[in-house]
Amino acid sequence: MDLSERIVAGEPRALARAISYVEDERDGFEDLLDHLDDRIGRARRIGITGPPGAGKSTLTAALTRHYLQQSLTVGIIAVDPTSPFTGGALLGDRIRMNELASEEGVFIRSMASRGSLGGLSTTTREASDLMDAAGYDRIVIETLGVGQSELDIASSADTTAVVLVPESGDGVQAMKAGLMEVADLFVVNKADRPGADRLEKELAIIMSVRADTTAPASKDGWRIPILQTIGLEESGIEELANGLDNHFNWLNESGLLEPRRAECRLRRAHDALLRRTKRDAEKVWRTAPSIEESIEESPYSIAQRLYDKWKGGDRS
Amino acid sequence: MDLSERIVAGEPRALARAISYVEDERDGFEDLLDHLDDRIGRARRIGITGPPGAGKSTLTAALTRHYLQQSLTVGIIAVDPTSPFTGGALLGDRIRMNELASEEGVFIRSMASRGSLGGLSTTTREASDLMDAAGYDRIVIETLGVGQSELDIASSADTTAVVLVPESGDGVQAMKAGLMEVADLFVVNKADRPGADRLEKELAIIMSVRADTTAPASKDGWRIPILQTIGLEESGIEELANGLDNHFNWLNESGLLEPRRAECRLRRAHDALLRRTKRDAEKVWRTAPSIEESIEESPYSIAQRLYDKWKGGDRS
Repeated sequence: MDLSERIVAGEPRALARAISYVEDERDGFEDLLDHLDDRIGRARRIGITGPPGAGKSTLTAALTRHYLQQSLTVGIIAVDPTSPFTGGALLGDRIRMNELASEEGVFIRSMASRGSLGGLSTTTREASDLMDAAGYDRIVIETLGVGQSELDIASSADTTAVVLVPESGDGVQAMKAGLMEVADLFVVNKADRPGADRLEKELAIIMSVRADTTAPASKDGWRIPILQTIGLEESGIEELANGLDNHFNWLNESGLLEPRRAECRLRRAHDALLRRTKRDAEKVWRTAPSIEESIEESPYSIAQRLYDKWKGGDRS
Repeated sequence: MDLSERIVAGEPRALARAISYVEDERDGFEDLLDHLDDRIGRARRIGITGPPGAGKSTLTAALTRHYLQQSLTVGIIAVDPTSPFTGGALLGDRIRMNELASEEGVFIRSMASRGSLGGLSTTTREASDLMDAAGYDRIVIETLGVGQSELDIASSADTTAVVLVPESGDGVQAMKAGLMEVADLFVVNKADRPGADRLEKELAIIMSVRADTTAPASKDGWRIPILQTIGLEESGIEELANGLDNHFNWLNESGLLEPRRAECRLRRAHDALLRRTKRDAEKVWRTAPSIEESIEESPYSIAQRLYDKWKGGDRS
């Protein structure tokens, strides 16, 4: 069997290797993605985002266990540098994650594609595609909810849950950080701590205020729910899973799912085109002067010279 | 006088317009930067970064007033979405900023270059170059210290101060967020609050631990100082300014400043080359199919087709 057949057959090692190919932009990785294109679209993609320390990984783990109990398989992509999935975490957290990783029906991958030509959001989307093709029912993408590129990743999911905790500041801060724009669902995690009810009320007020303005408190008519969870005690997880399902079902029934996904597909074509031209540019860059040689020439003159060289036909 | 002459003459409106040209990638903006190239290199560039709510803007403002008292002019670039400079702030903060903006010798610019081809870090660097050419003595770049691209911006300065507060979590969290890598200087702000001394001690411990490993606690032999400030009371600001100067002087005297800046210049050439090829790719993308037309074709097939078209010579 070739790699794509092994992925479709659900072989975890084939999937892991394919994701590495995508991350490394190994020769033929786009052919592989192209080949699997008609296998993509079955999984539901869920973004989990929020500030550091909001308990995103604990929630992701709890949600994953919930799905497993329902006989659903789960692929997890962690792009959060503070996540135990990616290594930046306390020992206890990491032990729990390792336990999860050994469960049947769970596939965990952490992404760190600094230096990848396509950028982290493109690579993450393609890794999700591969998990989708491999037959995982739910794909959970955990990202830190600060920084535009991180938010872009979270919002490329079908449904995005924004996780906040009483300690992470008030709702106004979440709004400022751009979290409001990506939320299909709010989760007030660590809801047993002081301030949880107050945070929930603040979020509700902010959203009702925004409903009166041009900005949508609901997206296309979807009323954004606010849920309370205690991730460590797995409390509120069923409600969270239901909330995620509700949003997905609403997307589907309102006829918004297909156009949204079609838009996302076209976006992939755009990103793939840009990645290719970038690869060409990086190839020309290899002929750039050294730091010492470059002192006398202005940066824009160097760029112009290399651009002309590339445009002149050296595009092997 | 043409625009570049007016910039060099220190006309704020000319500078503001030039930065807009760069942000919009208006025709000829690279010629302008090229033209000003030999005017660049006099200013000291200071990055101020840290988590949301650390008081970066208040410190930036206090530092700016300190410089003004020393008859130094200051250009401020705010790329932090939670900064009052960029609008996402409490009313009181914003009033203070507006006062600062009206001072002689201060130039404030907020950057929000979503969608710019060069990316936020490139545009920020070029805006700094323009401020440098305009004769500002200090250029303070305030960015949110979460997310890789934000950290890239902060670390493109000559000297980067990482601002933490007792509430923003412990030193371990800062380390995980990548803040340790960019810090030339740590600032424990809001030092009158409980936990400030503990945070300072934690940072000191973490850095001493790292000194024993391969990771540098000091960068190239620079011992990273930890300072305490109370931004709102302007306490510790002189020490901060001295700390920043000490680092710059150390860079200069150790012979590291010039090679670092030369590397940064060459990086600009690289970024300019990539921006140009990206512009070409975006031009070809305008001939992409609509979402409806694209349904039947795989994203990679669309990308291939457009790439071939572009490679085939349609590079007008």
